[in-house]
Amino acid sequence: MRAMSPYPAGRPVLREVGLRDGLQLTRSFPATTAKAEWIRREHAAGVRHFEVGSFLPASRFPQFADVREIVDLVSTLEGAHSVGLVLNERGARDALQAAVDEITVVLSASEAHNLANAHRSREQSLAEIATTVRLRDDAGSTAIVGVGIAMAFGCSLSGDVEPDEVVRLAERCLEAGADMIGVADTVGFGGPKQIAALCRRMTALMGDRPYVVHLHDTRGMGVANAAAALDAGARIFDASLGGLGGCPFAPGASGNVVLEDLVYLFETSGSPTGIDLEALIGIRGILEHEMSGEPLHGTLARAGPPPLFRWRAASA
Amino acid sequence: MRAMSPYPAGRPVLREVGLRDGLQLTRSFPATTAKAEWIRREHAAGVRHFEVGSFLPASRFPQFADVREIVDLVSTLEGAHSVGLVLNERGARDALQAAVDEITVVLSASEAHNLANAHRSREQSLAEIATTVRLRDDAGSTAIVGVGIAMAFGCSLSGDVEPDEVVRLAERCLEAGADMIGVADTVGFGGPKQIAALCRRMTALMGDRPYVVHLHDTRGMGVANAAAALDAGARIFDASLGGLGGCPFAPGASGNVVLEDLVYLFETSGSPTGIDLEALIGIRGILEHEMSGEPLHGTLARAGPPPLFRWRAASA
Repeated sequence: MRAMSPYPAGRPVLREVGLRDGLQLTRSFPATTAKAEWIRREHAAGVRHFEVGSFLPASRFPQFADVREIVDLVSTLEGAHSVGLVLNERGARDALQAAVDEITVVLSASEAHNLANAHRSREQSLAEIATTVRLRDDAGSTAIVGVGIAMAFGCSLSGDVEPDEVVRLAERCLEAGADMIGVADTVGFGGPKQIAALCRRMTALMGDRPYVVHLHDTRGMGVANAAAALDAGARIFDASLGGLGGCPFAPGASGNVVLEDLVYLFETSGSPTGIDLEALIGIRGILEHEMSGEPLHGTLARAGPPPLFRWRAASA
Repeated sequence: MRAMSPYPAGRPVLREVGLRDGLQLTRSFPATTAKAEWIRREHAAGVRHFEVGSFLPASRFPQFADVREIVDLVSTLEGAHSVGLVLNERGARDALQAAVDEITVVLSASEAHNLANAHRSREQSLAEIATTVRLRDDAGSTAIVGVGIAMAFGCSLSGDVEPDEVVRLAERCLEAGADMIGVADTVGFGGPKQIAALCRRMTALMGDRPYVVHLHDTRGMGVANAAAALDAGARIFDASLGGLGGCPFAPGASGNVVLEDLVYLFETSGSPTGIDLEALIGIRGILEHEMSGEPLHGTLARAGPPPLFRWRAASA
């Protein structure tokens, strides 16, 4: 792993995943220049962690055709960290060649969803994680290898998912050499009690090592779930500007938890993010311009910058 | 007070405040027949507590001109409870004459907002609360007299509000004879830590007596704040179907916390509400039809009824 951790201990990290998860299901997507402006302006506002895209065939996923350019852009920004999603060994090789800072491999918490989504068993996926780690080491790369455990709080195919099962899979991922684990409420089934229960287990398992909480706001629980995860010791959170993204099982539904709203949550919770909230709200204009057919979510932006927040920031 | 409490101990209560707070600022409002259908269908879905309107001059507030009819309707529904807002002694007399089950008087946590909103000092408002209690007793009424403390988590005019000050005002209200106290995040400034801090104080102050938490989702914290209040011992929550309502200080902003989303929160938190979530989502159609120019909020309704929730309900 890299000598300088991109995830400093004890400090909350909000990762912008709109460029990957936010574009996964949309019909339109920003031009590369607009993606670059989005990233540059968020970096200037204090965001440091960007999920840049998926390493998939450009013919089928044109929204990620420029992923190498986006990795290169992020590498030029001071202290910025790029994360790329891979679904198979070819993707992992492409990601390593692109010199992305962190590779995320997906594993579903349920066997049924792993078979449906990745067309292989969870055991086969675990073997691929070990392969990705070996490829990374053979390449002399310092990239972080992470695993995102999808459907960790309930599965759209098989219903409830037990925390024991997620923790068991997380242990298997660590045994396979993964540096980082993420737990994802892919379809937004969880409530805060459930999120807290698993995050307490993850905090105990991971100790000083960071883990990622990836929440969707499909059923309105996104911010409440983030608050519960924060209380349970989670420190790294995925989110997207304007809640960009959707849910494959609920057309029109909300997507990733809204980045702007999470910043406000963290600031009011005594966990400052270092992100300029007003600047962040302004960046939504890029998405409104580039993806005018996609709904943007988030209540904070509708209300305008909160005056009290400004007063507090000014007196801090 | 009534012999049979409309707020059974230990059980969460969600009050529909859309017919009052939700219509306070809107340009359009439902016809009386549509209000009646809204209430009847919510009652059938399991809602029992309805804020029916404000007792204000019909010439200036046509949306509340039918408040007496709405009180009468609620009185015909089994186990249903009506709450009416009053701003002065004349309103209190009208409310008592209408035989509303509960009268809410408003007091602002900050002197500045009380002066701006009610055109009198907080001391004068406290005296009016005592007058309302005396009017109720003189009339031989069993109506509950409650006080809603506005701006209890921050004031749009004077900034931060200290929990000590809210608790002091709550004590003064109880001394004035109030049966019920509510704490309102009128402009949605609070985050969950702040909500929890005041609710813990309120739980300690009120003991076995219920108190109301009235949240707005202006900055996206509504559901997270409700989760924090529930953990801190609060049991009665105001909410509105589709988050109807707005914020006078932020045009276009979200209004009351969304009733549907709170039902999902409570169900996933081990605090069943007895409310049929799917039926509730269907009732939004009345508002869409009657108030087509008003935005409806809430992510749960966009995603459609959650299948997992149905499975759990079916297996419970």
